[in-house]
Amino acid sequence: MENNTNQQQTQAPAAYVYSPDQLLQSWLGHRRITRRLIEAFPEDKLFTYSVGGMRPFADMVKEIISMSGPGVRGLVTDNWAPIAGLDHHTGKITAATKAELLQLWDDATNEIITYWPQISLQRFQENVLAFGQYEGVANSILQYIIDNEIHHRGQGYVYLRSLGIEPPAFYDRS
Amino acid sequence: MENNTNQQQTQAPAAYVYSPDQLLQSWLGHRRITRRLIEAFPEDKLFTYSVGGMRPFADMVKEIISMSGPGVRGLVTDNWAPIAGLDHHTGKITAATKAELLQLWDDATNEIITYWPQISLQRFQENVLAFGQYEGVANSILQYIIDNEIHHRGQGYVYLRSLGIEPPAFYDRS
Repeated sequence: MENNTNQQQTQAPAAYVYSPDQLLQSWLGHRRITRRLIEAFPEDKLFTYSVGGMRPFADMVKEIISMSGPGVRGLVTDNWAPIAGLDHHTGKITAATKAELLQLWDDATNEIITYWPQISLQRFQENVLAFGQYEGVANSILQYIIDNEIHHRGQGYVYLRSLGIEPPAFYDRS
Repeated sequence: MENNTNQQQTQAPAAYVYSPDQLLQSWLGHRRITRRLIEAFPEDKLFTYSVGGMRPFADMVKEIISMSGPGVRGLVTDNWAPIAGLDHHTGKITAATKAELLQLWDDATNEIITYWPQISLQRFQENVLAFGQYEGVANSILQYIIDNEIHHRGQGYVYLRSLGIEPPAFYDRS
């Protein structure tokens, strides 16, 4: 059998909580669920529907996108610039259809997959100033980005249920 | 200065995604938010209020409790027995007041804090059959338990908002 272990994994010690690739695969599994949730929303409800005065799910997705790809890229390059047209802090968000939102989602996933293997094991333990404003150990910055996605996606589940739509299974990461 | 590093941390290699204690502290931060969410619910609404036909938040909390303490204890001891009176699979759940639920919550937190330092670094990478039915690498079992808490707590945020109550801040892990 060929050795498919990548450079990052061979740097990992024999015993560890996570290999970098394990954490990445866990996140990508979550992103597949979130993508299915976006797809499950009716087009108009995705951008307009609200429960309890909260943001429409599309706005939560835009926030998730703006933190995810740029967050991983920033950890590698120290370039924390937002995606063009996708800075939720300045309101420069252009996705107005489900197809556009899914395209931005996939672009962010590709950015994560591209940059993640370039995060050195040492980097996970370094203090960083993420996006020029959030100070913390790199692993906690990544965990915040992942947890924030799970948090808002859970809210999207309630939106779907209250629309009478069965959401995708939480446990299915395929 | 005294050396407060515990035994588990000194086993950790020089470079790693997480130390076991970093992952524990991240989880405990989440548990402090979830506890504040339980407290923020009016007593009756905690056990009865629903959006979209979903479970009351107390039922979600009971599920989280039943997976958390017993999950960590199981990884250490291979004893996957449910907490007495708290097996959501058999419906043996006894908490009927907010105070009782918070007590069970704190008991589970104490169980996590007690057993977590006994998880060896090797153990995080072993295949386990959690609760006699969920097969996976130990770190993925723990991550599932943590993520499931974030997922359902996000749903609790929507419940609170739709009740006109301001939820605790997601970013405040104190």
